[in-house]
Amino acid sequence: MSAGRVCLAYSGGLDTSTILKWLIVEGYTVVCFLADVGQEEDFAAVEKKALALGAEAMVIENLQQEFVDELIWPAVQCNSIYEDRYLLGTSLARPIIARAQVRAAHKHNCQILSHGCTGKGNDQVRFELAWQALDPSLKIFAPWREPKFFKALDGRAALLEFAAKHNIPVDQSPRKPWSQDENLVHTSFESGVLEKPELEPPADLWTRTVDPRDAPDEPLKFSIHFEKGIPVKLEVGTETTTGSLELFKAVNKIGHDHGVGRVDIVESRFIGLKSRGCYDTPGLTILRLAHIDLEGLTLDSHVRRLRDQFVTTEWSRCLYNGMYFSPEREFLENSITFSQKGVNGKVNMMVYKGSAYVIGRSSETSNLYSETEASMDTLEGFSPEDTSGFIAIQAIRLKKYGAQKIIDGEPLTKN
Amino acid sequence: MSAGRVCLAYSGGLDTSTILKWLIVEGYTVVCFLADVGQEEDFAAVEKKALALGAEAMVIENLQQEFVDELIWPAVQCNSIYEDRYLLGTSLARPIIARAQVRAAHKHNCQILSHGCTGKGNDQVRFELAWQALDPSLKIFAPWREPKFFKALDGRAALLEFAAKHNIPVDQSPRKPWSQDENLVHTSFESGVLEKPELEPPADLWTRTVDPRDAPDEPLKFSIHFEKGIPVKLEVGTETTTGSLELFKAVNKIGHDHGVGRVDIVESRFIGLKSRGCYDTPGLTILRLAHIDLEGLTLDSHVRRLRDQFVTTEWSRCLYNGMYFSPEREFLENSITFSQKGVNGKVNMMVYKGSAYVIGRSSETSNLYSETEASMDTLEGFSPEDTSGFIAIQAIRLKKYGAQKIIDGEPLTKN
Amino acid sequence: MSAGRVCLAYSGGLDTSTILKWLIVEGYTVVCFLADVGQEEDFAAVEKKALALGAEAMVIENLQQEFVDELIWPAVQCNSIYEDRYLLGTSLARPIIARAQVRAAHKHNCQILSHGCTGKGNDQVRFELAWQALDPSLKIFAPWREPKFFKALDGRAALLEFAAKHNIPVDQSPRKPWSQDENLVHTSFESGVLEKPELEPPADLWTRTVDPRDAPDEPLKFSIHFEKGIPVKLEVGTETTTGSLELFKAVNKIGHDHGVGRVDIVESRFIGLKSRGCYDTPGLTILRLAHIDLEGLTLDSHVRRLRDQFVTTEWSRCLYNGMYFSPEREFLENSITFSQKGVNGKVNMMVYKGSAYVIGRSSETSNLYSETEASMDTLEGFSPEDTSGFIAIQAIRLKKYGAQKIIDGEPLTKN
Amino acid sequence: MSAGRVCLAYSGGLDTSTILKWLIVEGYTVVCFLADVGQEEDFAAVEKKALALGAEAMVIENLQQEFVDELIWPAVQCNSIYEDRYLLGTSLARPIIARAQVRAAHKHNCQILSHGCTGKGNDQVRFELAWQALDPSLKIFAPWREPKFFKALDGRAALLEFAAKHNIPVDQSPRKPWSQDENLVHTSFESGVLEKPELEPPADLWTRTVDPRDAPDEPLKFSIHFEKGIPVKLEVGTETTTGSLELFKAVNKIGHDHGVGRVDIVESRFIGLKSRGCYDTPGLTILRLAHIDLEGLTLDSHVRRLRDQFVTTEWSRCLYNGMYFSPEREFLENSITFSQKGVNGKVNMMVYKGSAYVIGRSSETSNLYSETEASMDTLEGFSPEDTSGFIAIQAIRLKKYGAQKIIDGEPLTKN
Repeated sequence: MSAGRVCLAYSGGLDTSTILKWLIVEGYTVVCFLADVGQEEDFAAVEKKALALGAEAMVIENLQQEFVDELIWPAVQCNSIYEDRYLLGTSLARPIIARAQVRAAHKHNCQILSHGCTGKGNDQVRFELAWQALDPSLKIFAPWREPKFFKALDGRAALLEFAAKHNIPVDQSPRKPWSQDENLVHTSFESGVLEKPELEPPADLWTRTVDPRDAPDEPLKFSIHFEKGIPVKLEVGTETTTGSLELFKAVNKIGHDHGVGRVDIVESRFIGLKSRGCYDTPGLTILRLAHIDLEGLTLDSHVRRLRDQFVTTEWSRCLYNGMYFSPEREFLENSITFSQKGVNGKVNMMVYKGSAYVIGRSSETSNLYSETEASMDTLEGFSPEDTSGFIAIQAIRLKKYGAQKIIDGEPLTKN
Repeated sequence: MSAGRVCLAYSGGLDTSTILKWLIVEGYTVVCFLADVGQEEDFAAVEKKALALGAEAMVIENLQQEFVDELIWPAVQCNSIYEDRYLLGTSLARPIIARAQVRAAHKHNCQILSHGCTGKGNDQVRFELAWQALDPSLKIFAPWREPKFFKALDGRAALLEFAAKHNIPVDQSPRKPWSQDENLVHTSFESGVLEKPELEPPADLWTRTVDPRDAPDEPLKFSIHFEKGIPVKLEVGTETTTGSLELFKAVNKIGHDHGVGRVDIVESRFIGLKSRGCYDTPGLTILRLAHIDLEGLTLDSHVRRLRDQFVTTEWSRCLYNGMYFSPEREFLENSITFSQKGVNGKVNMMVYKGSAYVIGRSSETSNLYSETEASMDTLEGFSPEDTSGFIAIQAIRLKKYGAQKIIDGEPLTKN
Repeated sequence: MSAGRVCLAYSGGLDTSTILKWLIVEGYTVVCFLADVGQEEDFAAVEKKALALGAEAMVIENLQQEFVDELIWPAVQCNSIYEDRYLLGTSLARPIIARAQVRAAHKHNCQILSHGCTGKGNDQVRFELAWQALDPSLKIFAPWREPKFFKALDGRAALLEFAAKHNIPVDQSPRKPWSQDENLVHTSFESGVLEKPELEPPADLWTRTVDPRDAPDEPLKFSIHFEKGIPVKLEVGTETTTGSLELFKAVNKIGHDHGVGRVDIVESRFIGLKSRGCYDTPGLTILRLAHIDLEGLTLDSHVRRLRDQFVTTEWSRCLYNGMYFSPEREFLENSITFSQKGVNGKVNMMVYKGSAYVIGRSSETSNLYSETEASMDTLEGFSPEDTSGFIAIQAIRLKKYGAQKIIDGEPLTKN
Repeated sequence: MSAGRVCLAYSGGLDTSTILKWLIVEGYTVVCFLADVGQEEDFAAVEKKALALGAEAMVIENLQQEFVDELIWPAVQCNSIYEDRYLLGTSLARPIIARAQVRAAHKHNCQILSHGCTGKGNDQVRFELAWQALDPSLKIFAPWREPKFFKALDGRAALLEFAAKHNIPVDQSPRKPWSQDENLVHTSFESGVLEKPELEPPADLWTRTVDPRDAPDEPLKFSIHFEKGIPVKLEVGTETTTGSLELFKAVNKIGHDHGVGRVDIVESRFIGLKSRGCYDTPGLTILRLAHIDLEGLTLDSHVRRLRDQFVTTEWSRCLYNGMYFSPEREFLENSITFSQKGVNGKVNMMVYKGSAYVIGRSSETSNLYSETEASMDTLEGFSPEDTSGFIAIQAIRLKKYGAQKIIDGEPLTKN
């Protein structure tokens, strides 16, 4: 009799192959799951390997469309970012993958979910918090936190020995001295040689962007159209792309070819450690910039301030910390959607050797910018005297402040 | 008898020359004031012109050093930015200029301050709020908001006529179709042809950065050292620069030569209008990036979150809105200083054709990053089981959320 | 020919009667407007007086129902409060009144709106900002800021003289040495003897609450039911009240009789002055307390934190500053509504001699509180070891902090 | 040989007596620790019992003075509160106790710290996070989370059996059907009969306040003086109290006698559960109210807004969650201190049958309130026309909003 039915997130690599085999050896029935979130992968080979190792079934699901529509677009709409630098590429994919894996578990009647994430990272937290929200009745088996597993399979030598003993095929090509993870949004790189944050990442690390030095010598100009804060059309010359997934891939290609979106940071993981990560995020870097620019034209300044200070910040934190399936993320996303009603228009951009630039924008639906009003050359509809009153009233408080400083013997005129 | 003694912010241009002459015609005694905050200027020529037009005195003060030390460094320390894009170059200079002008007024016994700012812009607000805080007893004369002045001198033709009548020399070189303002931090460009936000700025607009296409084909690598969040040493190859002003100018030069720091935005002015501004900000763009990166390594994540969400946001808004001399700015700056105690270290950077990149960082004083702890290859000092408990407790709330959704017939597993 | 058609907010008092007459004398046609927002008033007498003084029409509208439904309930839903003390009674009524006055202006074809608010207060700002948002094409005449008016009618003696000359009837009963304003929510008291903030308000000032010393010697117990954060039923003994307006009045009566809701503060007006205000707010004080309590039982802690820190704070500030008809208020209110979906249940309360107390609460729809889980006597469904992991992970950051302090020679064990 | 030296937080009750004996049985050497933070306690009896049960030593430390000066005063200075209701009484005492216990451990050469807190509560988190920050090298033994302990001693019967077997004296007086914790600030009550949040707490529960119904029929008036936000003098009639601890106790007595400070709530524990707590907090309730009131008079409105929205909120959350010894709490407290420089003055108060009221306030050092400026009866130093400009500029944005709504067919004049 089976010890239980496990739905295992399976990538085909040494770690998850070992977990798969180990679970089978321990008496579990295992259904493998792999999400297609836009990574380069020989899916057929992974399936073949899983079944060869004894998985009862291998579920592979293409989630690219829902990834763009449900996660990447809200990220664009709120300009999401973590610690001022990281565009959350991995964090954005996790909820989509977790949800599909729970569905697979339901379909295949599994009571246990499992993954191969390490015990120090963010991804274990993201998967497991999502799983528990998605179906509180499921159990979780996290082998790299289970002493029985991680003590027996401690280090690469032990893994290779286990693989040899159980006929797990091992990729013989030389290993990269870092680990990486890829989806539609970005490739992330961490650990290994990257753990020395003072050293420059190897030149051959980046996979999603050409080296800016190798990018074309001519800038490329293009336009992105937005409706309610969502990219709906890309124009490059006379060529037009619509359809959310197609558009996102096309912008990714632009970013890739021109070397846009490389970031190298030390970040604060949810569990309290700092770690170094490198990310190349071509398309989202461009779309975020375009969206921020269009909000300059079309979003009321007070709404923008509130959205920036609270919603953007907190939504990004929810995603980073694995709290996508949470009441607060739902609460925040309701605000994001509401804020974007008027964010319609077109942003003209240019990419060149590593950078993206906004070079113009327009909106047919917003009345917030007015050339006449903004003009320094005309006073049409404007009484300059009003500004005197505005300043005088604002100054009431500041005059008291200055007067008090004089009384205190520390006049503001001193350095 | 004099109608009063005015201290006028005087640039030597047509507008302020007209104001100077007009004030004299109206019976005022005028002391002219010009701050050297790093702009390119023929200061001797301005002085000569002021005196020729009848100014009692021309005060020119070099404020570059205090500009860097008192304003630019705090901006670096808190990564200040307005509406996600604007590095506040003009806003940062205003408090320094306003303070020196009040001192000049005191020294020359003036009871009235005056400037040539237009009635729709931010600068009038910044100068006047600062002046009123600095010395609540001084009066302000803002000609572009005084009907008697602006109705008489309505438009360029009227100004030229007034100039001709009063022998004000007029620069005969062709006028640029936009206005610009320059200081150590940036040059800003606005109005004129820029008032059509959909059009790309003219290629010859930018003065502080070369066109990225004309930047060197080879990247330049260099390092910046920080103490308490303040840049203290620049290393380029074997060359070393210290001294705050020298260092800032040297980083400006790097940014200039490699085309770093061009920004083109539509922003929300304090007085409620949106306007288009272009800024080239070479040095501060680089230093801000370096500082953000070093904070990744050396600043506690919770302090960083609070500083980002509240202090950075609000300090930047104070500056933009002309509230530098205010109790809230003082309150916020106290927090900035406190937060930077441990922000010590070195950031390795590269600039190339328009972009700046961080390629490594280190700190000898911070214990927040630990290669051993961060490493995915070792469990030294780390119990993976702890993470299980951490996740389980975080999940308590989320499981209730998911369970409630199931009860409500909207399980989270649905798209 | 009429100089224009004015819709004047008219109360029947000396000030607005003078304004009415003055406008007529100046050649305007005046339609008077008075909102019934729950104040005690002889509406027929006001109408009679307006018409006698020459108003073309007197519009009186009962806005009590929309006041409760559109303003007071959202205030309850977000626990709105200004500067930790003031429940915004006046601020809440202003948008409702302003909107009805604009409608009256439209109906009576008036192009100008007018009011009798002073030039230093908040209400002028609230009315005029609302009016300009409601219909940007309308003009505003604010007599107490018009030199022609306020210089001619400077002080009570001038007003009485004008009244005598133009046969304006003057109330001969002795004037109260303060001014007050009343609506369903509260009565506010300010100016006059209250301008000395160190002196206790006169005992006969309060109109909406009995002196706590005169309140019944027996506490009164009652229950309030909420749906989506809105009070829907009041139970006192076997008596039940439903209907929003009826319920609010009934809770007002409870608060009144038991002396609940007196507040005496110095507050910061929007225009930068501080002023002293006294408010008695019986019903809203009770309902706010009940609602806060029910949120303790039914609102997720993270949603509550976000709602408290940004929505409550900012919505309250919008209201106080007269920014009800603003994009940011609409943005915030969308969040309030969303947050309240699960705030259903019953709160048991008691009032006694000035205070309201919560003495119990329950909800049939929320799963957030569980007696079993909360119980210290059982471990059902709870693994105590999880908490060890939770604490250990949280401590990672704090241990570094403590270790650094030891290195710095300032161990945390020192005072 | 000893299994190790443990410093145990020991109260003399059944739980910690059992832990003490169990540790000794397991081979540990135990030093008991008890802090005097103002609770009613027979300290000599506790010491006698500890030694009788085999403790090597019993350390009792009077921490009342540092409790007031280091924790309670900052709480007053920032008006700290959790979830709008809870004044953090227990949370405030924990850091003081934790620090003294670590000192005791150092002095007595203990490597292990222990406590008797349950596995579901906040206090375990607060003690252990504090201990780990205070000395990261110490180990922690939490018996109620150790299976070996809690499985053996599961429930009261098992405890009594263990007590009988090991001659642990058991208090024979009837047990209260709830648990409580007491310190200078408050007594807290939870669990037992309180776990039904719909039921009113038993009348005999409250220990720190008389029932408001039993409070004197006459109000008591008194004044509190503050310097830099800290209470420095209490005046009741002609009697004056100074000295921080004496003053705090005297205000506690006032609150006690007049029944001020009872709160009954359901709160969100850090570990994600909701629980019901009752608190009676006489003195801090009064002092917090007085301090808030004085800030109305003396604190700049913008500083107050920033302090309220971020410092108060976040400092309170740090305390509740046991993050006192953290970089963010230190960061926030630096802001608190800074904000209080000008919070000097006197607040006149009254207490009566359960409530505290402010009835007047004054400050000799602040210039923020001015009777002349605030007065509605004079325009001295005030130009009413300025307000027109102020409103006009604020309206620019709102007029666009209203105009857009008209274009969109949803005019703001509609309900």
